[in-house]
Amino acid sequence: MTPAFDRFTCVIPAGGAGSRLWPLSRANAPKFLLDLTGSGDSLLEATWNRLTPLAPPERLMVVTGNAHRDSVVKQLPDLRAENLVTESQPKDSSAAIGLAAAILERRDPDSILGSFAADHVIRGNVLFQRAVRTAVQAADQGYIATIGIHPSHPATGFGYIACGGARGDLAPFDIYDVTEFVEKPDESTATEYLRSGGYLWNAGMFIARASVLLDQMALTEPEMVASLREIAAAWDTEQAAAVREELWPGLPKIAIDYTVAEPAAAAGKMVCVAAHFEWDDVGDFASVANLLTRGRSNDLAVLGDGAQVLSDASSGIVVSESDRLVALVGMEDVVVVDTPDVLLVTSKAHAQDVKKLVNRMKGAGGGHLL
Amino acid sequence: MTPAFDRFTCVIPAGGAGSRLWPLSRANAPKFLLDLTGSGDSLLEATWNRLTPLAPPERLMVVTGNAHRDSVVKQLPDLRAENLVTESQPKDSSAAIGLAAAILERRDPDSILGSFAADHVIRGNVLFQRAVRTAVQAADQGYIATIGIHPSHPATGFGYIACGGARGDLAPFDIYDVTEFVEKPDESTATEYLRSGGYLWNAGMFIARASVLLDQMALTEPEMVASLREIAAAWDTEQAAAVREELWPGLPKIAIDYTVAEPAAAAGKMVCVAAHFEWDDVGDFASVANLLTRGRSNDLAVLGDGAQVLSDASSGIVVSESDRLVALVGMEDVVVVDTPDVLLVTSKAHAQDVKKLVNRMKGAGGGHLL
Repeated sequence: MTPAFDRFTCVIPAGGAGSRLWPLSRANAPKFLLDLTGSGDSLLEATWNRLTPLAPPERLMVVTGNAHRDSVVKQLPDLRAENLVTESQPKDSSAAIGLAAAILERRDPDSILGSFAADHVIRGNVLFQRAVRTAVQAADQGYIATIGIHPSHPATGFGYIACGGARGDLAPFDIYDVTEFVEKPDESTATEYLRSGGYLWNAGMFIARASVLLDQMALTEPEMVASLREIAAAWDTEQAAAVREELWPGLPKIAIDYTVAEPAAAAGKMVCVAAHFEWDDVGDFASVANLLTRGRSNDLAVLGDGAQVLSDASSGIVVSESDRLVALVGMEDVVVVDTPDVLLVTSKAHAQDVKKLVNRMKGAGGGHLL
Repeated sequence: MTPAFDRFTCVIPAGGAGSRLWPLSRANAPKFLLDLTGSGDSLLEATWNRLTPLAPPERLMVVTGNAHRDSVVKQLPDLRAENLVTESQPKDSSAAIGLAAAILERRDPDSILGSFAADHVIRGNVLFQRAVRTAVQAADQGYIATIGIHPSHPATGFGYIACGGARGDLAPFDIYDVTEFVEKPDESTATEYLRSGGYLWNAGMFIARASVLLDQMALTEPEMVASLREIAAAWDTEQAAAVREELWPGLPKIAIDYTVAEPAAAAGKMVCVAAHFEWDDVGDFASVANLLTRGRSNDLAVLGDGAQVLSDASSGIVVSESDRLVALVGMEDVVVVDTPDVLLVTSKAHAQDVKKLVNRMKGAGGGHLL
């Protein structure tokens, strides 16, 4: 058999609107297509660039909605046509990653895949690559591996992974059994997690043999996996679209956490690579501000090529899509997002509540602005 | 002699940029030209309309800068050409009101004038007119009258008038000696003023015979008054512009408080009509918010014809010159001013500090936005 690493494909699920980042993120400009770090690259482009040292273009796959197909192709000129998997409607992560796995399994039954979200930010690429390589070793031996991030602070916005014993049998360093996945904790629980040292942030990365992942999913969702394998069987043929259109609408919307991660952990089939790179899921504008200022206090974050800001503030964030002046007087921790048709003003403390506003707008005839 | 009221001219000094209302107010769009109440009328138009029941157009005069001449004429189609007095450069209120007084004195030595700022807001026009009529009676008898407003709260943003004994000899109701004018107080002093009942807000209104006002001013600024009378002598001739250009630049910049009000009060020549109408000098966006909500709590103020606001806030103000959506999440007491080239975000508590920002911009190459 070829070495594990030569059978390894990186899958980038590029979905999710990022409604807490509205009005910067929109239905037609979801979070993964945006440059939220001021680097000049969108999160998708940065994800692609981060993965190219791990796999050549023929083993880099993107799963996205039909609606974003053109934008993805434009941003990723090296993406091979056969590795662009489109969903006719959003069906959450089990279907998206499951379809990729089924297609890869069909192409090579010994395929190993790693799934890496298109809209996270990572700093420390060498550490990231090292963690992925360790995970691939474990995956080749039949485990489902995830990568957990050593927490830098008691974050309440992330899920955590409780780790058990070291698995020196799988790789020499940094790999542990997963005891359980736990939901976003409250602050005191998060502080306790940090203190105990046994919890890592769940970055939502999964590395496994395609067949192992699908077989695990089939224990929870057998019909779904049967459909995914049926779609995959037709994928590289002329019937691809027809079969997908027939079966895709009937798939359940369910996160891979529930179909793979949690059941596999409960069954002792999940391992975690503990990693030290910086990671953020950029969930809201408070995260964007922290990323831009790299956690410095006494710094207002500014995002936007032409942004003109005059401010006496030492915190908060201004995102501007125009070159007009944004003047702030006496506003600490404010979030200002200045787009051509919507101006959002909120605070870092209320950054999560933007989602509520978006939901309110959906029901109130504001859909054209979403 | 004709009755006092038939010799009474209302003078509207229309000057002052209102820099605490930037970026709504600009050099070419000063506060008095703006509609800050959502009534459809600018403050100048509202002032004009408030005065028309007190004097016909031939006795309504506006003093303004050359730069605003066209805007004033456009807003006030009934303003007579001979009653539009323009300053070639701003020289503060002594020169502006003094020139009007000198012109009126020249036209009729028994003229009485009342000076009413173009950029204040008054509600309760009947009470206002009654107060002016009382003041005109006192003015005709040689006093300099002002109108003081019964305070509704311990404002620290206004000057106060300390009142002495009632002057039933001048008018049957509501007229008192002025003991002294006092500067803007701190909060505890303002509270004491309110408690004592003997202090009124100084609304900066002066009603006097033109000659009495000028003679009083001449005690402090004799050369200035001589120049003003010289300009006035030429005013209704072909030499008007030439004489003004010769003398105006040499006039001192000094507020009428120091040349007339305070010295006249000290000399026992000042009386005050105590009035109960609502008055505000609309000094900053916090004032604008209070005016728009008429002091209601649990109300976000919105100014702008096309303003679209989606907010969970129960306080603060949004001023919008566009029809794009302004979305506020979790922001109480915020001030958002959305203009085509500048976006200002501040809080009601910092509304006064907008002036500091404007001053900073003057020195920092931001003059084109002022």
